[in-house]
Amino acid sequence: MAKDFYGELQLGILGGGQLGRMLIQEAINYNVNVHVLDPDKNAPCRKLCNKFECGSLGDFETVYNFGKDLDMITIEIEKVNVDALEKLEGEGVIVYPQSRIIRLIQDKGLQKQFFKQNDIPTSAFQLISNKDNLVNASLNLPYIQKLRKDGYDGKGVKKIVTQQDIQEAFEEASLIEEWVDFEKEIAVIVARNDKGEVSTFPMVEMEFNPQANLVEFLIAPSLYGVEIQQRAEAIAKKIADDLQIVGILAVEMFLTKNGDILVNELAPRPHNSGHQTIEGNYVSQFAQHLRAIFNLPLGDTRCRTNAVMINLLGEPGYEGLAKYEGVEEVLAMEGVYIHLYGKKYTKPFRKMGHVCIINDDREKAISNARKVQEILKVKA
Amino acid sequence: MAKDFYGELQLGILGGGQLGRMLIQEAINYNVNVHVLDPDKNAPCRKLCNKFECGSLGDFETVYNFGKDLDMITIEIEKVNVDALEKLEGEGVIVYPQSRIIRLIQDKGLQKQFFKQNDIPTSAFQLISNKDNLVNASLNLPYIQKLRKDGYDGKGVKKIVTQQDIQEAFEEASLIEEWVDFEKEIAVIVARNDKGEVSTFPMVEMEFNPQANLVEFLIAPSLYGVEIQQRAEAIAKKIADDLQIVGILAVEMFLTKNGDILVNELAPRPHNSGHQTIEGNYVSQFAQHLRAIFNLPLGDTRCRTNAVMINLLGEPGYEGLAKYEGVEEVLAMEGVYIHLYGKKYTKPFRKMGHVCIINDDREKAISNARKVQEILKVKA
Repeated sequence: MAKDFYGELQLGILGGGQLGRMLIQEAINYNVNVHVLDPDKNAPCRKLCNKFECGSLGDFETVYNFGKDLDMITIEIEKVNVDALEKLEGEGVIVYPQSRIIRLIQDKGLQKQFFKQNDIPTSAFQLISNKDNLVNASLNLPYIQKLRKDGYDGKGVKKIVTQQDIQEAFEEASLIEEWVDFEKEIAVIVARNDKGEVSTFPMVEMEFNPQANLVEFLIAPSLYGVEIQQRAEAIAKKIADDLQIVGILAVEMFLTKNGDILVNELAPRPHNSGHQTIEGNYVSQFAQHLRAIFNLPLGDTRCRTNAVMINLLGEPGYEGLAKYEGVEEVLAMEGVYIHLYGKKYTKPFRKMGHVCIINDDREKAISNARKVQEILKVKA
Repeated sequence: MAKDFYGELQLGILGGGQLGRMLIQEAINYNVNVHVLDPDKNAPCRKLCNKFECGSLGDFETVYNFGKDLDMITIEIEKVNVDALEKLEGEGVIVYPQSRIIRLIQDKGLQKQFFKQNDIPTSAFQLISNKDNLVNASLNLPYIQKLRKDGYDGKGVKKIVTQQDIQEAFEEASLIEEWVDFEKEIAVIVARNDKGEVSTFPMVEMEFNPQANLVEFLIAPSLYGVEIQQRAEAIAKKIADDLQIVGILAVEMFLTKNGDILVNELAPRPHNSGHQTIEGNYVSQFAQHLRAIFNLPLGDTRCRTNAVMINLLGEPGYEGLAKYEGVEEVLAMEGVYIHLYGKKYTKPFRKMGHVCIINDDREKAISNARKVQEILKVKA
């Protein structure tokens, strides 16, 4: 790299939410000059960077102007203007992950086709251009319909079980996927630097909130056998290599009841399934992302202990200025680490923070996490 | 506390250097609104807080105006205008550590008298008002002369060995202390909250750079026997109780060759002897300071593993825009964590950052740290 990443390099982050915030907490250790673009003038990163710009992530001119004097750009959200990033790349700005990867991952249909073309195990699927295609779908009911673009955190996803559901399906260009009767949702975060070094974090197990379709409970490391873990990690490494990505990539997978692993979705950035690495592992996903994009040796991904991550979601029924209940009580417990995201207003299921609970005794980590879930509430 | 410390409370930090910077890295987790006052417009904290004000820490009006609309003030340096803090306390602003403690600790003479009055073991000493008093000093040569005020990091300290040295001694009001032929310099960081809860970090061992008189090498936890560790920790707890301090307090001590422990100096704030707690302990000194001043339950101070801290000092012979040599090489090593302080310019022995080296094998941690010391350099 022409410039030392410490002190001189100007790094832009597209998106100023919690992922950017935690990335900045780590970037401080390396004197990185951080510029942030986010449409929300009260974004969590706004007071923690060298320059904060309020503007649309989807607008070509805004993203291009934000990036044109920077040395490097990374993202904390996929939904950004890729044409602008492509132009910036052409003009010599380093964009990690590369714009072509963001473009691929923005479209769940292209993602699925990529899996198929590269022999990456995934559920059967069909791309449809509108709702009418569902009448003659190649898949049997039930299946999942996902909008090809702009879905996130469970938004843009519908389960189609009955003929009635077909009537109420999304109109737009979508992907339908065979319903997977999985045993567990698992994830592996993989990092790759420009030298081609690739490294995975140990596989984690997730439980979702069925109402909000958000990760509610994550346990690391997984207790599944070595064979399953190695298979999941090998899949993640293969994807990183196939993509030739620079940066980190979260690979969300299903472990089916008969032991198959099917890739569900990718996220080419720090991810909710890696927050526990801050306290739980030798390097965090945020430190690893910085090492990867700055082409430094990748760090030690091993777990230091058992870690459970719970999302701190806005309590249903409350909307307005956030109030946190139970902080004092949970901080009196052993191994509890609270991360609030600097969001002034809460609403039902909004991600307001997360808590990591560590313990050398795995069952104790889990029971403490359940306790924290009962005590700690975000109300208004 | 009237306001929740998260989201609503406005916290001021007097001083915007590396200690404030690492305190902010932790305060981000609790949505603390941070205001910083520092005389250097390029201070390490300047881009990491809600509001940065450039101004003198010693000026009454500046400190008073900075603090008058805040809810709480803490410090990262003792050399601040205490009269302003006292007035602010009188008007209802919470100042932790309390202004009376900062006043006491600013004056090394008062500190010594406090030790004596409270039966805290310390070396024999005498207060002198000017150099002439040295002719009839009650202590035998050699002894240490310390300016009562404004000394730090070895500045304002002289070893007086010969009659010639007496001629060249400091003119000003000073403290002279019996020369202690110590075996090891040790430190204990203690925290106390307003409920009166007191907790110590495990004792650490330090080695100083004789040229710069700065901590150069710190090892935690100490390998001295439990009896010595408990005695050192009991002394630190007693001081915290005697002072009724709220916040953290670093207690620097000498372990003498015949096994006595003598208190050398106090620092009522995060301290260089606690940086390794970020990676080495369950809670860091920065997290503990926040817990203490916000009257939250104190955290778990145990060591997670062996940690060695080395200061990254400006290389002698170089002055100007800082360049870091060897970063890539040391990041390829196991358990190496770099913390740069965001200082643009280096000069000989300036504290530019620190590195924490952890390892479950203590000897390996030490040898890796020695290697980092050889490889990593700050030049210009």
